[in-house]
Amino acid sequence: MNEQEFDRMLTKYADVVVKVGLNLRKGQKLSIRAIIDDAPFIRKVAESAYKAGAKYVDVLWNDERISRIRFEHADPETLGEVPNWLLSRYEDHYQNGEAELAVYSTDPDLLAGIDPELIAKERTARAKKFEPLRKYENVSNWCVVATASPAWARKVFPGLSTEDAQAKLWEAIFNSCRVDLPDPMQAWYDHRDNLIKYKNYLSAKHYSALHYKAPGTDLTIGLPEKHVWQGAEASFKNGITCIVNIPTEEVFTLPDKDKVNGVVSATRPLNLMGALIEDFSLTFENGRAVKVTAKRAKAICAN
Amino acid sequence: MNEQEFDRMLTKYADVVVKVGLNLRKGQKLSIRAIIDDAPFIRKVAESAYKAGAKYVDVLWNDERISRIRFEHADPETLGEVPNWLLSRYEDHYQNGEAELAVYSTDPDLLAGIDPELIAKERTARAKKFEPLRKYENVSNWCVVATASPAWARKVFPGLSTEDAQAKLWEAIFNSCRVDLPDPMQAWYDHRDNLIKYKNYLSAKHYSALHYKAPGTDLTIGLPEKHVWQGAEASFKNGITCIVNIPTEEVFTLPDKDKVNGVVSATRPLNLMGALIEDFSLTFENGRAVKVTAKRAKAICAN
Repeated sequence: MNEQEFDRMLTKYADVVVKVGLNLRKGQKLSIRAIIDDAPFIRKVAESAYKAGAKYVDVLWNDERISRIRFEHADPETLGEVPNWLLSRYEDHYQNGEAELAVYSTDPDLLAGIDPELIAKERTARAKKFEPLRKYENVSNWCVVATASPAWARKVFPGLSTEDAQAKLWEAIFNSCRVDLPDPMQAWYDHRDNLIKYKNYLSAKHYSALHYKAPGTDLTIGLPEKHVWQGAEASFKNGITCIVNIPTEEVFTLPDKDKVNGVVSATRPLNLMGALIEDFSLTFENGRAVKVTAKRAKAICAN
Repeated sequence: MNEQEFDRMLTKYADVVVKVGLNLRKGQKLSIRAIIDDAPFIRKVAESAYKAGAKYVDVLWNDERISRIRFEHADPETLGEVPNWLLSRYEDHYQNGEAELAVYSTDPDLLAGIDPELIAKERTARAKKFEPLRKYENVSNWCVVATASPAWARKVFPGLSTEDAQAKLWEAIFNSCRVDLPDPMQAWYDHRDNLIKYKNYLSAKHYSALHYKAPGTDLTIGLPEKHVWQGAEASFKNGITCIVNIPTEEVFTLPDKDKVNGVVSATRPLNLMGALIEDFSLTFENGRAVKVTAKRAKAICAN
């Protein structure tokens, strides 16, 4: 893909995110969380959002390297410090029913070698700080998308140069997000209709349980009697319906919390906010995790 | 300068900024305003600050390109929109006597071609929003420094590649900031003592007026009877004294606002928040500007 073609694809991707993912309403503000490596994509999103009538595009940039520098050099006693303005920014946002885009492209090895106790301390403090935000559940349209950051791309395509690895990862993202199709918007509306068909089919079946079998996995998940299947779209209190994950292929429902039994094993690494966890398994008895095995069990337990 | 040498200089520069420029106190939070291109330097500052005992380094990143995209594509009616959280962030900052670093490396052509009326509208709204911050004057230590951003470097060294231009501009910054001396800290303390000597000398002279003569300039500035000269250091209500501009070569005093007469002409372009103003002159009569000439007079008048 040459530079011009890549630019065209990035523009189409941004349009999919703003129109299908967020379904941004004219006059809404758009809040974005991104890392500074995401700048080329975020600029496209900002342009698309302003063209769609956004009142303001408010980008909260983060630099992952500085997050790591804090763990490396700050006095551990200070890791509970979370700025007040972050909370007021979100409260203002939710109270006004604004749109929110979260862009994920975390370096999978960002916190490699950092003491999990320190990571847990920082995360616990943030979670506690943001507790007042729980009451704003489902107030406004949001969307989560991914970008091909250099670090993530290098991890996924280790044999290639950073540039080639990023190009490959972008191709995979464009493909999975239907951006490479002639009419991505229509493709998404068709896909949404398809997922709605599946979720309605499953809801109508009233299954009593799901049974998952695979190497290392034998798990039974009981379902509540009146469970319903969800997927594709979500609707919010500000009246907007949108597709909150780009891409999404899932339909999902709620388990009966007391009827989960068996073992589930991960066959892919899990990137938990910069800590990579591999080869882990969870054993459940009546909904309680009774055993955890993992290469980095400490990191799992701390979270 | 090879990569390793550059890294060493950037580390020394960050240390000068944290120790001499901010005189950061152990346990202080440090708030930083920077553009995302500044990341390599800001990471060094964060490391230096945490090593000096900073409680938290809070970087407010901005992307200049998105600032421009707003002017290009947003509904002009929305340009008065300024997020509330920006104000609460600063209020929190000042109320707690925290340290603040502003990093300037603006693209001199950032807003070229944008209607000055739109720029004025956005700036007026910001100024109005931040009015409540005026009461916090001199509460806490701050510092302003520069970095060699790609756009600024290309403007200053137009014949070179971006990479070479940045290297040249960094060299100039390291030199003017005494970072290339064997002991930059001591060099700054010596320089400060020197400036203090000059300001005391000038204060003792009790001059009645300053007369500036140069091509295009013939300006007389009357001084109040009890004027004093300042420079080098500033002291703040949180008890910290520091050198707020890195670099600084100036000593300064207050004019008598009714006793400024004559013409002053700019011989260098002025970068006013992304709008470049060239070849401008101001004519004063008894302290009032009675005539303004400029290539972009509209932009000047709007501000």
